[in-house]
Amino acid sequence: MGISKRIMDMKFSEIRKLIPFANEAKEKGIKVYHLNIGQPDVKTPEEFFEAVNNYKGETLKYENSQGMMELIESIVKYYKEINIDFNKEDIYITNGASEGILFALMTICDFGDEIIVPEPYYTNYNNIARLAGVSIKSFMTFREDGFHLRSKEEIVSLIGDNTKAMLITNPGNPTGVVYSKEEIRLLSDIAKEKDLYIIADEVYREFVYDGLEYTSFMHMEDISDRVILIDSMSKRYSACGARIGMMCCKNKEISNEFLKLCQSRLSVSTLDQAGAANLINVNKEYFLKVNKEYEKRRDILYEGLCNIPGVSCEKPSGAFYIIAELPVENSDDFAKWLLTDYNYKNKTVMITPAAGFYATEGLGKNQVRLSYCIKGEDIADAVIILKNGLEEYNKIR
Amino acid sequence: MGISKRIMDMKFSEIRKLIPFANEAKEKGIKVYHLNIGQPDVKTPEEFFEAVNNYKGETLKYENSQGMMELIESIVKYYKEINIDFNKEDIYITNGASEGILFALMTICDFGDEIIVPEPYYTNYNNIARLAGVSIKSFMTFREDGFHLRSKEEIVSLIGDNTKAMLITNPGNPTGVVYSKEEIRLLSDIAKEKDLYIIADEVYREFVYDGLEYTSFMHMEDISDRVILIDSMSKRYSACGARIGMMCCKNKEISNEFLKLCQSRLSVSTLDQAGAANLINVNKEYFLKVNKEYEKRRDILYEGLCNIPGVSCEKPSGAFYIIAELPVENSDDFAKWLLTDYNYKNKTVMITPAAGFYATEGLGKNQVRLSYCIKGEDIADAVIILKNGLEEYNKIR
Ligand SMILES: Cc1ncc(COP(=O)(O)O)c(C=O)c1O
Ligand SMILES: Cc1ncc(COP(=O)(O)O)c(C=O)c1O
Repeated sequence: MGISKRIMDMKFSEIRKLIPFANEAKEKGIKVYHLNIGQPDVKTPEEFFEAVNNYKGETLKYENSQGMMELIESIVKYYKEINIDFNKEDIYITNGASEGILFALMTICDFGDEIIVPEPYYTNYNNIARLAGVSIKSFMTFREDGFHLRSKEEIVSLIGDNTKAMLITNPGNPTGVVYSKEEIRLLSDIAKEKDLYIIADEVYREFVYDGLEYTSFMHMEDISDRVILIDSMSKRYSACGARIGMMCCKNKEISNEFLKLCQSRLSVSTLDQAGAANLINVNKEYFLKVNKEYEKRRDILYEGLCNIPGVSCEKPSGAFYIIAELPVENSDDFAKWLLTDYNYKNKTVMITPAAGFYATEGLGKNQVRLSYCIKGEDIADAVIILKNGLEEYNKIR
Repeated sequence: MGISKRIMDMKFSEIRKLIPFANEAKEKGIKVYHLNIGQPDVKTPEEFFEAVNNYKGETLKYENSQGMMELIESIVKYYKEINIDFNKEDIYITNGASEGILFALMTICDFGDEIIVPEPYYTNYNNIARLAGVSIKSFMTFREDGFHLRSKEEIVSLIGDNTKAMLITNPGNPTGVVYSKEEIRLLSDIAKEKDLYIIADEVYREFVYDGLEYTSFMHMEDISDRVILIDSMSKRYSACGARIGMMCCKNKEISNEFLKLCQSRLSVSTLDQAGAANLINVNKEYFLKVNKEYEKRRDILYEGLCNIPGVSCEKPSGAFYIIAELPVENSDDFAKWLLTDYNYKNKTVMITPAAGFYATEGLGKNQVRLSYCIKGEDIADAVIILKNGLEEYNKIR
């Protein structure tokens, strides 16, 4: 008996390891503001629940392994509206973007192959890559640059014989960076020159602020056979619990193979697919409203953080996260302390230590990721609590 | 660029490859009886839809990675009733049994490790094992024996240094075998002697006929730390499209690690879990009724097959499949011919060639798997069509 090496190499979710401490604080009657989660508080559109409740079948059957046809058709339509031209055969429904990323890696990588990822990155990539037996090589991006790309040379220098793809999150989690058209072009050129795939994780596509233009990798026509687009209903429609993602690819050689992976787990939830298929009927106003709301929240959080002595951060343009450098040595200890030893008027804040988002040991130790998925007034209150917390923490240390 | 070797080694679902031919037949106006599918036609209990429709949340949030607490509690209760004593911490909800099997393999096997499986077996195991980088070594069971186990020696002789587990389906798909208590004991003894895990796929537990006693591997107390129980709502409650499975294990060292895998894909569908949690309230009559219905269908199919000259099969005691040997050389060609070149009073039958269920090349070529998931009178009609089909096919060959 025994346990596999691969699972021993996997880590428990960094984001969730503080939960027991938060629960203890709540049990003591302390209100905890959650600046740690990527779970939007926005309501899931009624269209979702309507379609679920109107579901006509009496027996919940396995759906198509590729996905429910109505859902796939609605996704084709959605992409048309943002100038991306997919056929039905290009789209495979997955159990969230999470499964899409795993399947993409398994399709193009063998055990021991490598992918390139800009650092810091979404922690879960580590575990998904380990499951696929794939190693992540990362190149650095920096808070001072708002996590934009620096040089082509550094990226290219990482690419070896076993490198199969670049995995790019845009807008970024945890960084909030939105890459410019030039940056997307730069990465596309590298993919062409070095014969790589691009796994484009664009689950935050709808969350771009300041009127910025968004460039998808699918807008780069000359590399459209190299792009595996990963997308999800989770954030776009505030439907994280529906577990509906997708994997889209114009390269038939690749997309045909996806079907094997989809068949290996038979199908994705029938009811969730029925609900998701109806989301195409959500009024366009919805996105505008949600977007405005998040932009407002970002402003409250960013400006609040700028007013805390010793805190540094850049204004992010997308997603709903911000990386802040705090005047502490170890943000892990500080995040725990906020929950176990501190409260301000019976309230405290839960934040995510950023070290887990870095692959390079020792980086991000004084950084945290803050999300702005809660109401603006709560964010404003949370920032005051954080400010006081930092003062008190640095007095006693 | 290119495609991974592992995915090139994977096969498209055997069960589904005849679908285009069935669709063509239907377009020609021919009625096709589906004896090929493992999709029960029984209604999903109302309790499921009720709970889904009564779901109160306005935002569909990520559930716990382990699974929704109400669902886990209801599962603990279900097992108590069949004398299996699990704690809440022992149970992890998965996207169907399919994901449970993948996760179990990843937890206990590294790339290149092996598992032992009795042959013939559920084809999907091949692809799931390939995804995990695990090889399947199989030992034979035979139609003449009703697919019961032969000798301990043969099984033991397959076990090598890299063997980590036996994967046992009980009741069996495609065989319909229900192992006796003695057989379960035999396998348990081997696991103990050879220090192996048992991955016990018991998704057909509820489908056992002739008043037979059912023995779960979890009833073998002395090996309960070695058993990873895989289970599912798909067949039990005719809720295949809900994608709710589970992975249960009393060995804390193992079950703790499961959480990492569950976290890597965040959570399982919130609504489906809410629906599944309410299935514990389904009246016990439901199972009795469903069971009786399937037993009747099995009798119709088995007796019908016995009356076709040249057809041999044993009466299965569980699940809803039967393996039949046909008087044809290649059941693949015959299955296709039934759809493309034949009809009887404008009707035909879709059957699954059995070769795909065998790991050993060349075996099962004259066998088919027939399922009895359709109404009794349709099964009776289908058998007549099959009989005539065989006659006609053997006339022209
Ligand atoms: C960058 C990124 N990709 C993928 C996901 C997974 O999303 P899903 O819910 O679709 O699995 C997340 C979730 O937080 C994410 O932040
Ligand atoms: C033996 C066996 N195990 C597992 C499964 C997968 O079931 P689920 O729908 O729970 O993924 C099946 C489905 O046919 C099966 O026959």
